[in-house]
Amino acid sequence: MAQIRMETNLLGANDMLAAKNRRIFKARGLLVINLMSSPGSGKTTLLEKTIEALRGRIELGVIEGDLYTDQDAMRIENKGVEVVQINTEGTCHLDAGMIEKAWSRLEHLPIQLLFIENVGNLVCPAEFDLGEDIRVVVLSTTEGHDKVLKYPLVFQQAQVVVLNKIDLLPYTDFDLNAFNRDLQLVNPQIRVFQLSGRTGEGLAQWTEWLVEEVGKRVI
Amino acid sequence: MAQIRMETNLLGANDMLAAKNRRIFKARGLLVINLMSSPGSGKTTLLEKTIEALRGRIELGVIEGDLYTDQDAMRIENKGVEVVQINTEGTCHLDAGMIEKAWSRLEHLPIQLLFIENVGNLVCPAEFDLGEDIRVVVLSTTEGHDKVLKYPLVFQQAQVVVLNKIDLLPYTDFDLNAFNRDLQLVNPQIRVFQLSGRTGEGLAQWTEWLVEEVGKRVI
Repeated sequence: MAQIRMETNLLGANDMLAAKNRRIFKARGLLVINLMSSPGSGKTTLLEKTIEALRGRIELGVIEGDLYTDQDAMRIENKGVEVVQINTEGTCHLDAGMIEKAWSRLEHLPIQLLFIENVGNLVCPAEFDLGEDIRVVVLSTTEGHDKVLKYPLVFQQAQVVVLNKIDLLPYTDFDLNAFNRDLQLVNPQIRVFQLSGRTGEGLAQWTEWLVEEVGKRVI
Repeated sequence: MAQIRMETNLLGANDMLAAKNRRIFKARGLLVINLMSSPGSGKTTLLEKTIEALRGRIELGVIEGDLYTDQDAMRIENKGVEVVQINTEGTCHLDAGMIEKAWSRLEHLPIQLLFIENVGNLVCPAEFDLGEDIRVVVLSTTEGHDKVLKYPLVFQQAQVVVLNKIDLLPYTDFDLNAFNRDLQLVNPQIRVFQLSGRTGEGLAQWTEWLVEEVGKRVI
């Protein structure tokens, strides 16, 4: 009983901080995207390719959530983008307070689009609002089409799914029809991009959509 | 502060229950394996193939941890093996208390090898001892070789890694040398099986090792 009460309080406190983040981001006309996925679905590679595609068009910033290492942050920094690293020290998700602190290191920059790369985990991050505009789930074809029904919360609360590694589709048992049918059950409004971060196939639709969304928020 | 104290107490209680489970399993001469991985690494397919390979040689039981669905449990049941389903209802890991309850549904059976398929998550399950003998991490080549350093706890606490989906190795950027080097850093004693649950390549070494481990525990 104590556990349930505390979690409710924790989530309540997180929601208040997330609402505060959201007000700040909105006042700045900033598009904030919370990228969530399993380990190894290709979030960082997708970010690298997105940064390259948007170079010279949109000012980007990245907040990198990771348990211990700064490997992903280094990969993003190598692309010439401002990045703030959050080490969660074993905690399985980012929370709104971590984002508030990380944002204080970025707020002086003329950023139009802020990516938050969450900890690789399909379960815990779904429960924590960070104050983002849009939640994007990255799922790779090699993980299997059954993941939508097995991890419904993260798909229910997202506005976009990126189905990554479509170059590996011929070598897997991934069933696109079953995937789309299950998405219809769980979240009929969700938008799907099919792409390969590795080969670049389908990437243009994703980056053009980002440009469009940034345009909607210009103040 | 309150949060840290509570987690410590929770883990303390879990450890006591895990020790109790371990005594019970040991007295039975039972080999208990805790299978941990990201979503989509192929744990259930590996279990299906393992069941087929050990049929008629070893009596198996399975405890299936899943957030909400019984898809994996159904797949295992279709193989003719006794399975107990635990729905964690959103909780990101199994704990020793759940295993104690599930075991009460299996203890009347002449089982020699009990597989526990944990919730698909590389972070949280690593913190919870279930009373198992052996922890096995399943990592698939499509997830990337960098996962050992990014999720070190689960690799540190495991005795075995199954590197799955080696049939997809030619289509990925997975670096076997880097993977082995990182394992040496994190856990030099760890044993590695390279296999493909889908094609069956390398499966025999894994199942022969299981037969050997079961043999060591016969009382």
